[in-house]
Amino acid sequence: METTGLAPHSPDGTLSRVALRRRELRDDDVAIRVDFCGVCHSDLHALNAWTPQSPGLLVPGHEFTGVVLATGDAVSAFTPGDRVAVGNIVDSCGHCPMCRRGQENFCRESPTLTYGGTDRHDGSPTLGGYSREMVVAEGFTYALPDTLDAAAAAPLMCAGITVWEPLRALGVGPDTSVAVIGIGGLGHLAVKMSAALGAETTAIGRSSSKADDARRLGASEYLVSSDPTAMAAARERFDVVIDAIPVAHDLSPYLELTGLDGTLCHLGHLGPVTVDAMDLLIGRKKLTSAGSGGRPATAEMLEFCADHQIGSDVETVPSADVNVALDRLARNDVRYRFVLDMSDLDD
Amino acid sequence: METTGLAPHSPDGTLSRVALRRRELRDDDVAIRVDFCGVCHSDLHALNAWTPQSPGLLVPGHEFTGVVLATGDAVSAFTPGDRVAVGNIVDSCGHCPMCRRGQENFCRESPTLTYGGTDRHDGSPTLGGYSREMVVAEGFTYALPDTLDAAAAAPLMCAGITVWEPLRALGVGPDTSVAVIGIGGLGHLAVKMSAALGAETTAIGRSSSKADDARRLGASEYLVSSDPTAMAAARERFDVVIDAIPVAHDLSPYLELTGLDGTLCHLGHLGPVTVDAMDLLIGRKKLTSAGSGGRPATAEMLEFCADHQIGSDVETVPSADVNVALDRLARNDVRYRFVLDMSDLDD
Repeated sequence: METTGLAPHSPDGTLSRVALRRRELRDDDVAIRVDFCGVCHSDLHALNAWTPQSPGLLVPGHEFTGVVLATGDAVSAFTPGDRVAVGNIVDSCGHCPMCRRGQENFCRESPTLTYGGTDRHDGSPTLGGYSREMVVAEGFTYALPDTLDAAAAAPLMCAGITVWEPLRALGVGPDTSVAVIGIGGLGHLAVKMSAALGAETTAIGRSSSKADDARRLGASEYLVSSDPTAMAAARERFDVVIDAIPVAHDLSPYLELTGLDGTLCHLGHLGPVTVDAMDLLIGRKKLTSAGSGGRPATAEMLEFCADHQIGSDVETVPSADVNVALDRLARNDVRYRFVLDMSDLDD
Repeated sequence: METTGLAPHSPDGTLSRVALRRRELRDDDVAIRVDFCGVCHSDLHALNAWTPQSPGLLVPGHEFTGVVLATGDAVSAFTPGDRVAVGNIVDSCGHCPMCRRGQENFCRESPTLTYGGTDRHDGSPTLGGYSREMVVAEGFTYALPDTLDAAAAAPLMCAGITVWEPLRALGVGPDTSVAVIGIGGLGHLAVKMSAALGAETTAIGRSSSKADDARRLGASEYLVSSDPTAMAAARERFDVVIDAIPVAHDLSPYLELTGLDGTLCHLGHLGPVTVDAMDLLIGRKKLTSAGSGGRPATAEMLEFCADHQIGSDVETVPSADVNVALDRLARNDVRYRFVLDMSDLDD
């Protein structure tokens, strides 16, 4: 299947249209017309690492929604016209202990990434959702509930599930108090989901600029992290701290907010993390992380969002504006997620 | 009250007898004849930091058992002749949120350490259990159950409670699998307590030299950490990993043993700890620590040990042999805790 995508190929790394092929449908494949694709920080990282010497095409995009165009012979869950959503993994080994527990995101043989990965069956490189058509195995294609807006739902598939899994695993609900640090793509969804789960939710930012937004998202309180009095007053107040700051930073001020036997979940930044053992010891605090989601949790998250009318706050732009969107994302100039409208690729 | 203790005062740092005074009994004080005092790694650290220029006396010892000699006017829980035990904290503020929750070990105004601390009431330096008589507030003096051996119980008060609190906080019981790494003073008690709590317990050591001991302590299995095949076979097998290795070390091999949503509790070594965020992300693993215990947990731990006949495996030596014991402890040449018999201080 011939289609059109967006990829860097000039020396400055800006994206432009490219022709690309999608595989012929296997028995369990679904062909999808991509309508909306979120712009994730991971896309920026991948593009920053790209050079004109990089082999193969780089077509980013791993949180998208669209409509089923055709299905393989063995597909039973979808028919053409169905609204669907796809996230950042499109396959996994299926037999390791993590896959058997529905945590395909932690597949021991590594899940197949939606772009920048390698297809497990034919060895071809995977090309992402910045394109008009995709082919994805049925098992990693999710029904998009009717009541969810297709543009606002796209970021649920990466940003959303990445905060949903730890909120659920940490038992967030009516009896818990949650702090969310870093109100961006991940953080604003964490606030919405935490509040909808019934938890008392506090948003934390560097300045008060997002205080009104945070309350609208569902936070009952907003803390300015540069205000030592406010931070001291919140000492050890939270059962769960979702740290969605997308750069390396000192965790100790946020471990100080974490309560007895509480957990700080460090998201959005990979690489080495150093903490002082005493910051964990005093209060038996836990440090964890999370990323992406397994199939059961992803389906559950979409149902929950449909029930609670949760979508991402998005700024939807024509896919032709992808370079502007990436530039603005790099400057954190978006509330809270860019979504590319891929329909202009038909022109 | 005049008594005798052990303290370094020659340039080489070896300990010898010193005369020292204990305070007159306050209303809530208990005077205790110290019978047995455990030798903890902390004692080594404190002695290594000591120099002839250090101000004041250093009398180590913060896990001891003995008998009540006299009580202050307001003491109701103890009478002379009662068997008692004391651990590494002897006071706390009593009104902060941690103290109110029975976690005096995490007192926000810092608990008063049994030695090397400062009395909250008269500002005097605290002197530890390497001495024949102690005066301790009733609230930090614990009844020693009749069925516990007084020598074997002494190390429960520091090593024991330090592993007991995280085992309990992490919900260790019949449905959990626990690994204990580093079978020493802390680790051997973690194996005993974990097994007595009903958990499937695996001990892990650098060599097979402690394999038979580990099984006797209650482990159903023993893993040699230098055996890559055995370690790979145990990947992600444990809900709780108690890491009692008393020196800085790479946590990644042990995070790999930790299961989905499991917790690695890093004990026995303070200071900065660095982990790769991916080692936490994949499997949503948690890193935590713990140390000492609050009053409710300490009392509960003693009852549990009495019910399950758990004491430390000890090598009891006359207090006159303290320097030999410390030297051997520094070389890890003890199974698994030295206990000083203080009765020779009467001679």
